[in-house]
Amino acid sequence: MNCELIAVGSEILLGNILNTHAQFLSEMLANAGIPVYYHTAVGDNPDRLRAVAKLAFSRSDLVIFSGGLGPTTDDITAEAVADVLGLPLIPDERAWEEILSYFHMRGRTPTENNQKQCLVPKGADIFYNAHGTAPGFAVTVNGKTAVCLPGPPRELVPMVREQLMPYLMRESNLRFQSETLMVFGIGEPALELMLADLVTGTDPTVALYAKDGEVQVRVTGAVDRERPDDAKIRAVVDEIKRRTGICCYGQNIDSLEQAVVPLLAQQGKHLALAESLTGGMIGKRITSVPGSSKVFECGVISYSDRIKHELLGVREEDLARYSAVSAVVAKQMASGVQKLSGAEVAAAVTGFAGPASPEDTAPVGTVFVCVRNGDRQVTRELHLGHGHGDERDYIRRLTAMHALDLVRRMLLADPDLEYDEESL
Amino acid sequence: MNCELIAVGSEILLGNILNTHAQFLSEMLANAGIPVYYHTAVGDNPDRLRAVAKLAFSRSDLVIFSGGLGPTTDDITAEAVADVLGLPLIPDERAWEEILSYFHMRGRTPTENNQKQCLVPKGADIFYNAHGTAPGFAVTVNGKTAVCLPGPPRELVPMVREQLMPYLMRESNLRFQSETLMVFGIGEPALELMLADLVTGTDPTVALYAKDGEVQVRVTGAVDRERPDDAKIRAVVDEIKRRTGICCYGQNIDSLEQAVVPLLAQQGKHLALAESLTGGMIGKRITSVPGSSKVFECGVISYSDRIKHELLGVREEDLARYSAVSAVVAKQMASGVQKLSGAEVAAAVTGFAGPASPEDTAPVGTVFVCVRNGDRQVTRELHLGHGHGDERDYIRRLTAMHALDLVRRMLLADPDLEYDEESL
Repeated sequence: MNCELIAVGSEILLGNILNTHAQFLSEMLANAGIPVYYHTAVGDNPDRLRAVAKLAFSRSDLVIFSGGLGPTTDDITAEAVADVLGLPLIPDERAWEEILSYFHMRGRTPTENNQKQCLVPKGADIFYNAHGTAPGFAVTVNGKTAVCLPGPPRELVPMVREQLMPYLMRESNLRFQSETLMVFGIGEPALELMLADLVTGTDPTVALYAKDGEVQVRVTGAVDRERPDDAKIRAVVDEIKRRTGICCYGQNIDSLEQAVVPLLAQQGKHLALAESLTGGMIGKRITSVPGSSKVFECGVISYSDRIKHELLGVREEDLARYSAVSAVVAKQMASGVQKLSGAEVAAAVTGFAGPASPEDTAPVGTVFVCVRNGDRQVTRELHLGHGHGDERDYIRRLTAMHALDLVRRMLLADPDLEYDEESL
Repeated sequence: MNCELIAVGSEILLGNILNTHAQFLSEMLANAGIPVYYHTAVGDNPDRLRAVAKLAFSRSDLVIFSGGLGPTTDDITAEAVADVLGLPLIPDERAWEEILSYFHMRGRTPTENNQKQCLVPKGADIFYNAHGTAPGFAVTVNGKTAVCLPGPPRELVPMVREQLMPYLMRESNLRFQSETLMVFGIGEPALELMLADLVTGTDPTVALYAKDGEVQVRVTGAVDRERPDDAKIRAVVDEIKRRTGICCYGQNIDSLEQAVVPLLAQQGKHLALAESLTGGMIGKRITSVPGSSKVFECGVISYSDRIKHELLGVREEDLARYSAVSAVVAKQMASGVQKLSGAEVAAAVTGFAGPASPEDTAPVGTVFVCVRNGDRQVTRELHLGHGHGDERDYIRRLTAMHALDLVRRMLLADPDLEYDEESL
């Protein structure tokens, strides 16, 4: 079975909105082993939509439409699809009841237009919509299956996850299971070499996705619905974890802070932050994790030399002698905020994010990170610039990741850490 | 002239990457008055790509391909397009020289594969690539124009802006000019009513784009190339500014911090921050603006009651009596960080971002913002929750925007501000 996707809506063709459904559906279908050969976007124009639909049914077994199921005259998808498949549209009673109750719950009354949203091709299987008014549906004619989904993401996404995917897999004994591993500290090319034999495997499949500074590794395999046994998937996951070691920071999470916050909680420790070039970004990331208030109390954004000195106790003579972007100052920032906050763990960052660094200093991208765990301490000098302009945001994000990763490694007592001599 | 877009790359069909070029190109073309009727994405498969290209030339005057111009055997776009148009591929000498110098500058040597990247259809106009190796090109056969662009965004985006758009407009006396206004504090529906007569205009056009908490208003008009006169555009921009008043925070910028940092700099003032629920997000936003170090020195992320008391001097009895999420505490946080930092302007935020708020307290989304400018002060209570789960990030972002906007209004001495009585 091969598949293609058709997004309906003039706002896509005008560039007003990004067609994120195409990526989401493609990923879901790829994980289910259903190949997608084409994405199309077309406007709210009946003739062009019908022509696109006809072409799609001529070359694909499964055609998934998104958008154009709303109540207005612009919304033409159900009608065009039924027309191309030669099916009449008939009202679905339960869909109307659900629309009535959807409006009732919100203290509103549906308009006559909403009745249009209950019209579905005769013989369609219906996906009732828990998050909006338009139902989705699937209908098969002469071996060609059309699926129509509502356009708003908060309606489409749960409908795909909870209804469409099980529907497409209904005749299969298999369901697909994905496990995601996150790796920081090994670049994508190196990781690809390291996992070469696994990446070429087909059951399970292993795919690498490079993100800024980190790599997501997705392991996907088929599992028998009746006798679910994911041993093959688990074996590959374990093998990847073994090879990547401490660089693998988590499974089925998507950011370093989601690894750091639970680790701090398990160890009953608190984190304090002293941020210079990141300006609050590390604090923002930590506090994006619900429950972070148990492990995080205090951050100081010390953007000037004066505040580094006055609030964190960095010595003025060291600021003058070594400049604020130095290992010496990073260390004093870390111990300063540790003392100020009483936290067991403290992280400090200082560096040049650009666009320019002051004359006669280190180049843009020079960053010092210091993390203290109790009275042991690791300091690192990083060079994150590539000499392009416009790297300010990239350098700040990478700095935040390096700091979070160093906190994680210290909490895990990574045996490869090189502790600062004065802390030994 | 009607247009369609074809993105080439199996990684798009697998859902590994989002087809952002479709939106970017559509927006640029819409602003230039060129209608786009179709977006297609197709994989690195010669037969399917050729079929898609043939169809596109049959229904559109201008077909813009992106991706598939790289050096590997996967990269098939130039070949397929030349084939469909019946043109031979010939090497372009200057393209090869530019590739050599591109590699030379980076201390590397091109491979034989890179020679493939200099092959362009005979008669093509070439867009040399300042940001990568593959040149783009445009070629017209029988009134049908094919444009091929490299896939990486940092190559495609400048090539479109600097080369493709002027090329497409080369025979026109007109160029299109867009001005963007940012509005915070008027919702999109209200703004649409307020600007109804302008939104229906056609020269210039006025389009509204709702973003989280703010609305972008884009005014686009045609300007004669020889006698550039943008009076009509300016008149509409001025009228929108007049109607939206102080809610319009800037022209051709995209965030409140880009308005706040220059305002502080003009007035020679410094900003200090005391952040609770936002956890550093406001600091991160301020410091994302290059040059912010001149106006920003200090932020305190006071995530616990203890730090609010110890670092910012919030009274323990007020924390106990009113809780940390209260106007009283927001005010003490603002004056505390103002004193600590010596800054003229101080902003403090405290609130419940969720997912849950403690028992017997205000609901999730209750937020207090206090901003001090000298010794005058405004405190606001906000209710940003809508009762859905999963609003933590939304509530934090809106809080940051409200705080930045209040700083801006105080710097501008907005006559509608209600100052706290004790500050008068």
